[in-house]
Amino acid sequence: MRRSAPALRATAAAPLLLAALALAAAPAHAQQPAPDTPLQAQYRATAGRIIAAALADSGAWAKMARITDTYGNRLAGSDALERALEDILRTMQQEGLENAHAEPVMVPRWVRGEESAELVEPRGQPLPMLGLGGSVGTPRGGITAPVLVVSTFDELTRRAAEARGKIVLFDEVWQGYGPTVQYRGRAAVAAARVGAVAALIRSVTPFPLRTPHTGAMYYDSAVARVPAAALTVEDAMLLHRMQDRGQRVVVHLTMAARTLPDSPSRNVMGEIRGSEHPEEVVVIGGHTDSWDVGQGAMDDMGGVVVSWEAVRLLQRLGLRPRRTIRVVGWVNEENGDRGGEGYRDAHRDQLANHVLAIESDGGVFRPTGFGFTGTDSALALVRQIGALLLPLGADTVSRGGGGTDINPMTQLGVPSMGLNDDGTRYFWYHHTNADTPDKLDPREMAQCVAAMAVMAYVVADMPERLPWGVPAGR
Amino acid sequence: MRRSAPALRATAAAPLLLAALALAAAPAHAQQPAPDTPLQAQYRATAGRIIAAALADSGAWAKMARITDTYGNRLAGSDALERALEDILRTMQQEGLENAHAEPVMVPRWVRGEESAELVEPRGQPLPMLGLGGSVGTPRGGITAPVLVVSTFDELTRRAAEARGKIVLFDEVWQGYGPTVQYRGRAAVAAARVGAVAALIRSVTPFPLRTPHTGAMYYDSAVARVPAAALTVEDAMLLHRMQDRGQRVVVHLTMAARTLPDSPSRNVMGEIRGSEHPEEVVVIGGHTDSWDVGQGAMDDMGGVVVSWEAVRLLQRLGLRPRRTIRVVGWVNEENGDRGGEGYRDAHRDQLANHVLAIESDGGVFRPTGFGFTGTDSALALVRQIGALLLPLGADTVSRGGGGTDINPMTQLGVPSMGLNDDGTRYFWYHHTNADTPDKLDPREMAQCVAAMAVMAYVVADMPERLPWGVPAGR
Repeated sequence: MRRSAPALRATAAAPLLLAALALAAAPAHAQQPAPDTPLQAQYRATAGRIIAAALADSGAWAKMARITDTYGNRLAGSDALERALEDILRTMQQEGLENAHAEPVMVPRWVRGEESAELVEPRGQPLPMLGLGGSVGTPRGGITAPVLVVSTFDELTRRAAEARGKIVLFDEVWQGYGPTVQYRGRAAVAAARVGAVAALIRSVTPFPLRTPHTGAMYYDSAVARVPAAALTVEDAMLLHRMQDRGQRVVVHLTMAARTLPDSPSRNVMGEIRGSEHPEEVVVIGGHTDSWDVGQGAMDDMGGVVVSWEAVRLLQRLGLRPRRTIRVVGWVNEENGDRGGEGYRDAHRDQLANHVLAIESDGGVFRPTGFGFTGTDSALALVRQIGALLLPLGADTVSRGGGGTDINPMTQLGVPSMGLNDDGTRYFWYHHTNADTPDKLDPREMAQCVAAMAVMAYVVADMPERLPWGVPAGR
Repeated sequence: MRRSAPALRATAAAPLLLAALALAAAPAHAQQPAPDTPLQAQYRATAGRIIAAALADSGAWAKMARITDTYGNRLAGSDALERALEDILRTMQQEGLENAHAEPVMVPRWVRGEESAELVEPRGQPLPMLGLGGSVGTPRGGITAPVLVVSTFDELTRRAAEARGKIVLFDEVWQGYGPTVQYRGRAAVAAARVGAVAALIRSVTPFPLRTPHTGAMYYDSAVARVPAAALTVEDAMLLHRMQDRGQRVVVHLTMAARTLPDSPSRNVMGEIRGSEHPEEVVVIGGHTDSWDVGQGAMDDMGGVVVSWEAVRLLQRLGLRPRRTIRVVGWVNEENGDRGGEGYRDAHRDQLANHVLAIESDGGVFRPTGFGFTGTDSALALVRQIGALLLPLGADTVSRGGGGTDINPMTQLGVPSMGLNDDGTRYFWYHHTNADTPDKLDPREMAQCVAAMAVMAYVVADMPERLPWGVPAGR
């Protein structure tokens, strides 16, 4: 069933539709456990074996800790990342993963350099900060300017006349990641549009311990490029209170950030080759790069490792599925998406045989299930498989989900999935110096391995291929 | 009923003993609310008025924020502390507190200076740190030495032969503050005893975001003085994992810490003078100094301010008790206790008329009640008063409690009490850059004001004086 990807998106898998709708109509958690479907009956024992073996092993945590301790954080273009990638590839080969290899990708190279911020008026105080990824630096010697604190883009629009020559600080309270991260992305453009000389944001997090959070920001070619950095939540609130008391607030900001020419990097991958349809692939993975702070343990070496250990677990159990399972460590998720785009481009003529893509990039805390993007008939099938994860509490397969690295494939019709987990503390650590191995729990990571292994294995092995295609509008 | 303090400690208040024992035998929370005692009947309406007025006012939070925003952190001997004390005294006078004045105290003066730590082997990485208060500095240029990581003092004893010339890092996991803070206090002496050149500890906290925690440490005149600093929990664990993998761990530590001559400071205080027994005093308060990080909001300007606002609230309500209520901001709790000792010395011949001392130095989160140190008969009475705080959920008066600043009085027989609150997050912020006003909640602070005001007012006003004395062994 080869298909050219985009054309068939909306019509994929029509024959399965009626059966799928019937299954989808059944409540996910009935009071009485529903009797097994034939698919569930076929794989329940194997799923139980996979789960038991996964939970008996803390190898995922140890591997994640070893790699992140050894190489530290791994921004695209850094030596640390390249040495980590060499290690991962060498380890995959030593472990006997099949077809372990790297595929070259050029990545952007942003370098933070020395940076600092200091409150100058009404009193002196260092302001812990992190420049935002992609920002330009300040002039040598830095910028010293009065600060205009606003809560929102709307407030800046209303107070535009006050912004000229100032540093604009957006003190937007956490409203969930999606809405709040707009300020990280767009602060510099919004500030420059009204004549400000720099943009600061309140770190994008619901809970801080005077912890700055970095992340990507964007310029607009029609607007002057001004430096942009994140202050801590505490200091954004402090400066806001000072302004509210009628005090003049002045900050000195110094950033040596710069963007260097693109540099070579790679996606790394290995496989269990399928026994009957090796050309059909279930691809799973996470991203190997991180921001240049902390150790990139949760975001996202943990995601790479639970995918990798899922494949290793199947290998150790002697479970070779009909189709190929490929684990990929994509590169440059944080500030360029070149890994995901490069994979799509390198495998463009095989995407119609990419049966499913699963990414883990939301932390590897206690898994709750998966989010799925694809046809209704495919959703009904993966929900049957998800139900096999009930012993882990990871049996909820919700509509919608994927990942930044697999999104270029999703756009071309590859059914896509993201591992979901307990995200309570994810944004406490996200893009900070506190993203370290201790934040992850060996048992929870083993549960993630189990969930990834069961889902990938059953989709790769089940007699009928998962219906392909992603409905328009997703 | 004047008494010279120490002599009467064990025999105080014998006449009330039988009645008190009868009351103490009643369960604190019976299924049916117990009928009011005469004391409760007398004060229930007033307590309700105090609570209602306190909860209608967020002045405590605003005052705490204004002072800590304006002056920042306030280590003993710093200009910031002295300017904050001038502000507090001036404000008390402007508010019309009676007898608002300062009493001089000499305080130690420890200066942190520039400091840093860096992992040198097996890879380079900055190690966020805070020198411990009282530590000596390193030689100019710092110390570079291999690290021996141990979990406990016992492990260091077993591995003493490995410690010579090394930096010893104590990676003791959080066991609660009391046991774990032993490592902060005694690490330097333990390390120096086995020939180490410096001591590092894992920060004393149950939850970190790569956050170092400072605090006091101690030397022993018989042991060489080596520098001592706290690493973050994350980095202590990192270095421990590296050692466990057989890697050689080397750290470079630079500290310019030094101790200067004592400098003048003061306790600040104000009163509502008693209408019948002005010489009898209920003293309440917290400490004005903080460590030289963060803003010392929770520890302990919040405690000073809830005590202060309790007195202000009574003043506004026109509630002048029979006895005097004095609010005190003691100085130098963090690294010398000179404020508490100085107050005791300045008021030594009035301590027998100090009816009760209440300190708030455990954060001003949601109040749960008080801990009390005194005679059983006095405990029975303050439990009756505590029950009036049931609407706040702050009605539990447990045996044992006080505060560092009032402890010199407790030792001489003054009945003593500490405000108890929900301490869930207290040690997340304790002695860090994250001790800032946003961690405190205006409504919870108002509840603390209510609890302090009701307890202080009723003890100061009730017809019978609270039995004096503290049993031997407390």
